[in-house]
Amino acid sequence: MAKEITSRAQDYSQWYNDIILKSDLADYSAVRGCMVIKPHGFALWENMRDQLDKMFKETGHVNAYFPLFVPKSLFEAEEKNAEGFAKECAVVTHYRLKTDPDNKGKLIVDPDAKLEEELVVRPTSEAIIWNTYKGWIQSYRDLPLLINQWANVVRWEMRTRLFLRTAEFLWQEGHTAHATRQEAIDETVQMLNVYATFVEEYMALPVVKGIKTESERFAGAEDTYCIEALMQDGKALQAGTSHFLGQNFAKAFDVKFSDRENKLDYVWATSWGVSTRLIGALVMAHSDDDGLILPPRIAPLQVVIVPIFKGEEQLVQISEKVNVIVKELKALGISVKYDNSDNARPGWKFAEYEKKGIPVRIAIGARDLENNVAEVARRDEKTKESISLDSIAQHVHELLEEIQQNIYNKAKAYQQEHITKSDSWDDFVKLLDEKAGFIAAHWDGTAATEEKIKELTKATIRCIPLDNEQEAGKCILTGNPSTQRVLFARAY
Amino acid sequence: MAKEITSRAQDYSQWYNDIILKSDLADYSAVRGCMVIKPHGFALWENMRDQLDKMFKETGHVNAYFPLFVPKSLFEAEEKNAEGFAKECAVVTHYRLKTDPDNKGKLIVDPDAKLEEELVVRPTSEAIIWNTYKGWIQSYRDLPLLINQWANVVRWEMRTRLFLRTAEFLWQEGHTAHATRQEAIDETVQMLNVYATFVEEYMALPVVKGIKTESERFAGAEDTYCIEALMQDGKALQAGTSHFLGQNFAKAFDVKFSDRENKLDYVWATSWGVSTRLIGALVMAHSDDDGLILPPRIAPLQVVIVPIFKGEEQLVQISEKVNVIVKELKALGISVKYDNSDNARPGWKFAEYEKKGIPVRIAIGARDLENNVAEVARRDEKTKESISLDSIAQHVHELLEEIQQNIYNKAKAYQQEHITKSDSWDDFVKLLDEKAGFIAAHWDGTAATEEKIKELTKATIRCIPLDNEQEAGKCILTGNPSTQRVLFARAY
Repeated sequence: MAKEITSRAQDYSQWYNDIILKSDLADYSAVRGCMVIKPHGFALWENMRDQLDKMFKETGHVNAYFPLFVPKSLFEAEEKNAEGFAKECAVVTHYRLKTDPDNKGKLIVDPDAKLEEELVVRPTSEAIIWNTYKGWIQSYRDLPLLINQWANVVRWEMRTRLFLRTAEFLWQEGHTAHATRQEAIDETVQMLNVYATFVEEYMALPVVKGIKTESERFAGAEDTYCIEALMQDGKALQAGTSHFLGQNFAKAFDVKFSDRENKLDYVWATSWGVSTRLIGALVMAHSDDDGLILPPRIAPLQVVIVPIFKGEEQLVQISEKVNVIVKELKALGISVKYDNSDNARPGWKFAEYEKKGIPVRIAIGARDLENNVAEVARRDEKTKESISLDSIAQHVHELLEEIQQNIYNKAKAYQQEHITKSDSWDDFVKLLDEKAGFIAAHWDGTAATEEKIKELTKATIRCIPLDNEQEAGKCILTGNPSTQRVLFARAY
Repeated sequence: MAKEITSRAQDYSQWYNDIILKSDLADYSAVRGCMVIKPHGFALWENMRDQLDKMFKETGHVNAYFPLFVPKSLFEAEEKNAEGFAKECAVVTHYRLKTDPDNKGKLIVDPDAKLEEELVVRPTSEAIIWNTYKGWIQSYRDLPLLINQWANVVRWEMRTRLFLRTAEFLWQEGHTAHATRQEAIDETVQMLNVYATFVEEYMALPVVKGIKTESERFAGAEDTYCIEALMQDGKALQAGTSHFLGQNFAKAFDVKFSDRENKLDYVWATSWGVSTRLIGALVMAHSDDDGLILPPRIAPLQVVIVPIFKGEEQLVQISEKVNVIVKELKALGISVKYDNSDNARPGWKFAEYEKKGIPVRIAIGARDLENNVAEVARRDEKTKESISLDSIAQHVHELLEEIQQNIYNKAKAYQQEHITKSDSWDDFVKLLDEKAGFIAAHWDGTAATEEKIKELTKATIRCIPLDNEQEAGKCILTGNPSTQRVLFARAY
């Protein structure tokens, strides 16, 4: 078989695209910057979504659905938010097409069907939601309002990449309303922790929790909290954000409530989101040159069983035993597929499931059956073992947990090796080029210095870690005094 | 308490709107024709979606996601489909806003950011999907392709109504590809049956399965199968459609496959969908003048428990017992909420949960506790019983099934009473005005007669039932010969 996937060493960026296309996660589409999420990729997203949704509900949130379109007058109400998104939004201006009088069979925009007010396809929903909350909130009794939405959003990015940056993407956006500043801040931090737990425990991807500098903040937020992950090429990737919005949106949309003392005040807000971008992070963090590696807890399929047989009789014998194993695995809550199709040879199937990242593969042939064993191969380490059929289900059950942990441990070790302190500019630049990862360095706290460093090195401040130690030092660029290190990295 | 909901007798249409707004299913939005689905309504949709999704997966379908936008050149490729939807589609023409130079703080469409090709916001996804399938299908080995998508779509309707007809709505659309005509027809019928089973067994709403006449067919289909339900005012509502698309889309997008004999042929297609419109049907079919009535199998909440107490001590005693009942109910898979909030009196809570359609309400006071009983009230019949606490969980478990069945039986009886044969024009018109429902009458099979009847009476042919008896007769309008009765009704 021809080598389908470019190696990481050869071209990391091409490797990433190859993995996604060849493992059937996604495909390009006819629409500039938009992708098709294929069944394998969508099943992965469903597992991620369902787990997150469970965690949101466990923390008291409910789902709702708000309109796709934001009338321009609402869009521009919160000035900073509008300014941040105006440059990249899709705008609906007409509501009808008509037959081209000069070219039958072709359609043109009907000039008589121009909208009185243009509609922006939501790039994020603060505006439409806070305009709605105005009608729902009068008193402290209506608070907190803890609502989440699963939706598609559109940001007209000029340079797009599958999953990482697409014009349309799927996400969830939580929008909560609170009576006090502190309660809103607590919610912001709580949801950051939910994201960190999900990404670490389900996606097996260690993250640094931190807070963004002013220049990296969400447009319209008072503070943006984030989780930052490291990819295998040493670049960082923002995996989720949780925003403390202060009273900005309440003021823009005039949302006030009367408190217990009957005093009117503006409502405090948060918003928080993760998107299909997480799938990009998952691919980049764990996969190898042979294809995807998926953590068992979110894999669309955890185990595949491939029979190795000559003739119908052998297949019948093998299948009889496999059906028992399938039942045992399912009883343990494990998703399993028995691929007894006769349109491909075992070797082809092995490569296919390897490429798709199925965590465990069981192969079983006629001689195995005689010996009451099967070959169990793990995707993460590419090792194989011969396991007794009597205990195979329990073995696989434990193996899946071991694989989950192993994938995390590898990523954690990589992350730990790639957080490096630096105290001189030359060292800083050299580290960025030769080792990459996060560089913990002092910064003088000004946006000008941050911008200058970005200009010189393409590195940005990913975050100020939440558990940061205070330490006197000098800015890596200007030498001005600093009280703590921040994490720099080149990022996706 | 002021009567919040207009009665059906007084104004059926206003009753419908009142129910939706007062039971917190949905709200109007700032966007013309678009609604906000509130948490109670969305939880209902989630239950419906999850059950349908399970049924789709059990019949071998997988989910995927295709772009929101359809480039105009793809949109117009299947001529009939394009013609059918061109008159009501939202069109994106620009990808950027900019600050209005004459009015700082306001935004205008940036004329320099005009798209080379306009993008239609999908009203349905055949075009974008079949353009994608072209790259996925080469051989009979790639077939069948059984894909479903959960998505939002936009149809620029001029007269909108909450749930029943909104500019944006949520739905699922299945799009399958097959090697033979017969296989595609079988799939079309299979999915119609899935819809009928879901609507009858979960929504407790009896339907007639049938086939549409040519003039009511989906734009681009060879045949449209449908399920038709009756509302309490005797009007019909199309609850789901399944289309046999023939080779129309394969030809429009040049999707061919090589069969087992290596011969090239166009692929056969189906598409099928149900939407949030079903929630409108649910409301109209079952609810009463006091609010929603929800079938237990899809209710967001099945049981609510309200304590009746004076003082903290009584509440503690009641809560201790209720916590046990809550555990027992949950162990039986029943969703239950214990509303021990002290910000409203029991009577207010009763009315609130009644309005929201919660199937079973349990009330328990200090004296009940002494007698080891609680009051169990059912929403559908408004009857109450005193039930021993020792067997209350099991009692409620059975009661929920009884309520599900009772709601269905009532709707079924109504439907049976409202399918009436008619053999003369005068009788036909009188029936439509006085009794409504489905009228089974002979029709001469021509689109002209169908159109004329619609013009004269506003009644349309809802469907030709699948299990129709053949019977010689004369067309109700023209007297021309006919071989079977079809179902006429005024419809939503």
